[in-house]
Amino acid sequence: MSLSTSVPQIFRAIDVIRKKRDGVELSRAEIEGLVNAYTKGEIPDYQVSAWLMAVVLKGMTRLETAALTDAMLHSGDVLDFASLPRKKVDKHSTGGVGDKTSLVLAPLAAAAGVAVPMISGRGLGHTGGTLDKLEAIPGFNVNLSVAEFRRVLEVCGCAMIGQTKEIAPADRKLYALRDVTGTVESPYLICASIMSKKLAEGIDALVLDVKTGSGAFMKSETDATFLAELMVETGERMGKQVVALITDMDQPLGNMIGNALEVVEVVEVLRGGGPEDLRELCLELAGWMLHLGGVSKTVAEGKLQSAKLISSGAALERFRQMVELQGGDARVIDDVKRLPQAQHSTQVACAKSGYLASMECEQIGTACVILGGGRERKEDSVDPAVGIVLHKKVGDRVAAGEAIATIYYNAEAQAARARQLIEASCAIADAAPATKRALIHKVIEHKVIGKSGEKN
Amino acid sequence: MSLSTSVPQIFRAIDVIRKKRDGVELSRAEIEGLVNAYTKGEIPDYQVSAWLMAVVLKGMTRLETAALTDAMLHSGDVLDFASLPRKKVDKHSTGGVGDKTSLVLAPLAAAAGVAVPMISGRGLGHTGGTLDKLEAIPGFNVNLSVAEFRRVLEVCGCAMIGQTKEIAPADRKLYALRDVTGTVESPYLICASIMSKKLAEGIDALVLDVKTGSGAFMKSETDATFLAELMVETGERMGKQVVALITDMDQPLGNMIGNALEVVEVVEVLRGGGPEDLRELCLELAGWMLHLGGVSKTVAEGKLQSAKLISSGAALERFRQMVELQGGDARVIDDVKRLPQAQHSTQVACAKSGYLASMECEQIGTACVILGGGRERKEDSVDPAVGIVLHKKVGDRVAAGEAIATIYYNAEAQAARARQLIEASCAIADAAPATKRALIHKVIEHKVIGKSGEKN
Repeated sequence: MSLSTSVPQIFRAIDVIRKKRDGVELSRAEIEGLVNAYTKGEIPDYQVSAWLMAVVLKGMTRLETAALTDAMLHSGDVLDFASLPRKKVDKHSTGGVGDKTSLVLAPLAAAAGVAVPMISGRGLGHTGGTLDKLEAIPGFNVNLSVAEFRRVLEVCGCAMIGQTKEIAPADRKLYALRDVTGTVESPYLICASIMSKKLAEGIDALVLDVKTGSGAFMKSETDATFLAELMVETGERMGKQVVALITDMDQPLGNMIGNALEVVEVVEVLRGGGPEDLRELCLELAGWMLHLGGVSKTVAEGKLQSAKLISSGAALERFRQMVELQGGDARVIDDVKRLPQAQHSTQVACAKSGYLASMECEQIGTACVILGGGRERKEDSVDPAVGIVLHKKVGDRVAAGEAIATIYYNAEAQAARARQLIEASCAIADAAPATKRALIHKVIEHKVIGKSGEKN
Repeated sequence: MSLSTSVPQIFRAIDVIRKKRDGVELSRAEIEGLVNAYTKGEIPDYQVSAWLMAVVLKGMTRLETAALTDAMLHSGDVLDFASLPRKKVDKHSTGGVGDKTSLVLAPLAAAAGVAVPMISGRGLGHTGGTLDKLEAIPGFNVNLSVAEFRRVLEVCGCAMIGQTKEIAPADRKLYALRDVTGTVESPYLICASIMSKKLAEGIDALVLDVKTGSGAFMKSETDATFLAELMVETGERMGKQVVALITDMDQPLGNMIGNALEVVEVVEVLRGGGPEDLRELCLELAGWMLHLGGVSKTVAEGKLQSAKLISSGAALERFRQMVELQGGDARVIDDVKRLPQAQHSTQVACAKSGYLASMECEQIGTACVILGGGRERKEDSVDPAVGIVLHKKVGDRVAAGEAIATIYYNAEAQAARARQLIEASCAIADAAPATKRALIHKVIEHKVIGKSGEKN
């Protein structure tokens, strides 16, 4: 055996694992080495999962987080829409219950003159997913090639697809591994996963909707703020304009939960109606998209412009155009009964009179999953027709026997379990809640650059 | 999709990973489930490596450590020597440089009437291994079947072999994974690995030699003491008598380092000679083995008895008998020149006069590895002939130009690098060190049972 000093400097995963385990900051080269070698299959899952657990428990500095995001972004194709004259702006939500804003925002911002190349995900856990909602529209194709995606974007200013094999392959591989090794719950890994995919869209700016409350992945506002600041800073380190809104997910957004039902509510909002909270959040997010997209001087002006594009019907027409271009049956817009319909419905009645004091929002999401409207495992398929319509929201007065919600279902046993969950999740109080949670908790607009090597 | 409540309770590795990640104490059933499923190949390496990293960073309670040891022990065969009328006692060292006490102790304790069924390991990193030393004796077979092991033990009272496939297979699989995932350095995992293998020997008592200092894996006495207490308590929880001696490894033990050279020094000690530190440690450890083995009332009496068995030649004859029974050429005992000899030797001279103030003991061990006397990777083979003989120990007076050590080697380039390391590892001071480190730092004899659920 000889320990030659002239051994070439090769990448050794074990060294990177040990450094992270011991709390030493990794260099950009070390992080790139790990991500590239893993993407190419040169280092095994068992080394990467040990590293991921060390990251979960030891954290990352801002520089490490940016380096990880960058390495994951460049593990695959980065789309280039520079030839489009408009600014490219996207919106991303960290996931919630009844959150259908993407379907409103893409055509709305496009109608205002912003290009929205949106790559979305599917529902997982108790949350819904944009792709599942779009697929509730008969014929809608979310699996466009990059060339088709570009064409739809050029023609109508927005296009909505799922992640392709070419986009951030490192994220797909890492996410699958995190999912089975208890390493999902790290703001650093969540940030790198989200930002690498979004920046691969070739966008100029990004509006982040970071949810907080009982229906969010980040239940506490502290955790949500931490993740939001991390994403804003990481995006800005990579030369993009990023803003994050911390928004409420302590009860479902809007009244409808379930894929086809949510399309119904999207159409309502695009027609100028819909529930107040959903409409307000859409306008707020649209205001930011228009502002960052350079079509409005201020966010307030962007909101006003967005409201006008809804009133005029321009936003709805843009939605119709996108549905048609992506192969969907646009007749559902004028006749929502053409959307998949559940066979049965049943009401959940209130046991006593009083005020709806709170809702365990994650339980409502889980009730929809149980009905078949979401998926626990990635390979599960969803039933687009089922879901829940809420007749009461937090703070509303309720009378004994009055309907709080209607369940739309295709199997009795599932409906019975969903009913139990909904009943258990609603707390009725004698008095109205003293304070109402704000819809927009805060906006993180400016970058928060930490010192090099700073942790947390 | 249905989330039936009647799903049978199956073992889910992900739940155990998450609990450990979040610092929740695992139950015995959860630890057994993980170890058994992994041994059977039912859960993948990548889940276990994430769990191992969580253990490294979150630690284990005493109950978890005992449960892990027990699960690993029962993953394979547990030898049963109950039919032997003598008490079965073994000794285990955590590894050092020049540590050849096992080769002295097994025949010495056997000569006193204790049965020593010793399963040992090979050198790894900068440390030597008992099996490599034994194999320096031409013909010596460390790969006996369990039946042959038993026969040698019955005939001469001691036998020394390597780990068989049937003994603690979970440890072999886990150790291989820890080695490549940066999860070796955890006292809880080290404890479970050592104790599961040792208790599988079917012993009644165990003497642990936990090394501390610059040549040990546990450099600090605090870490060594923590590991020692953990092993003593774990052994006692499993119904065994266990004692741990914290002993010095701030310089090599004895004067000779290298496999054949160490056999020479073993024969010297068994003939009543040999260096003082090696002889003293052998008598101390033997005293404990005889005491725990029930053949001496006190440790002091056991030491005295051991010294007599050396003076009488009984211990050396027992060594000769074991070598013959295991196929070795016993003529080496009377003529050590029959052991493998290096082709060349060269002296390392002292640059200036003064006192040898300290030695970087790990560097001396690494110098021997570089000569070919140890292995960096498990699959490397060793050269039994090469090694280092020290002419000076810490505290000795040295004159400029005087030989500190002699290097025995078979390749010039290796000798040159070993020389550099030895020179760099020796610090020469004008005055003698004010204090001399004790050989035996402390003895941990009584169990240290922590509260259930206690951490650290």
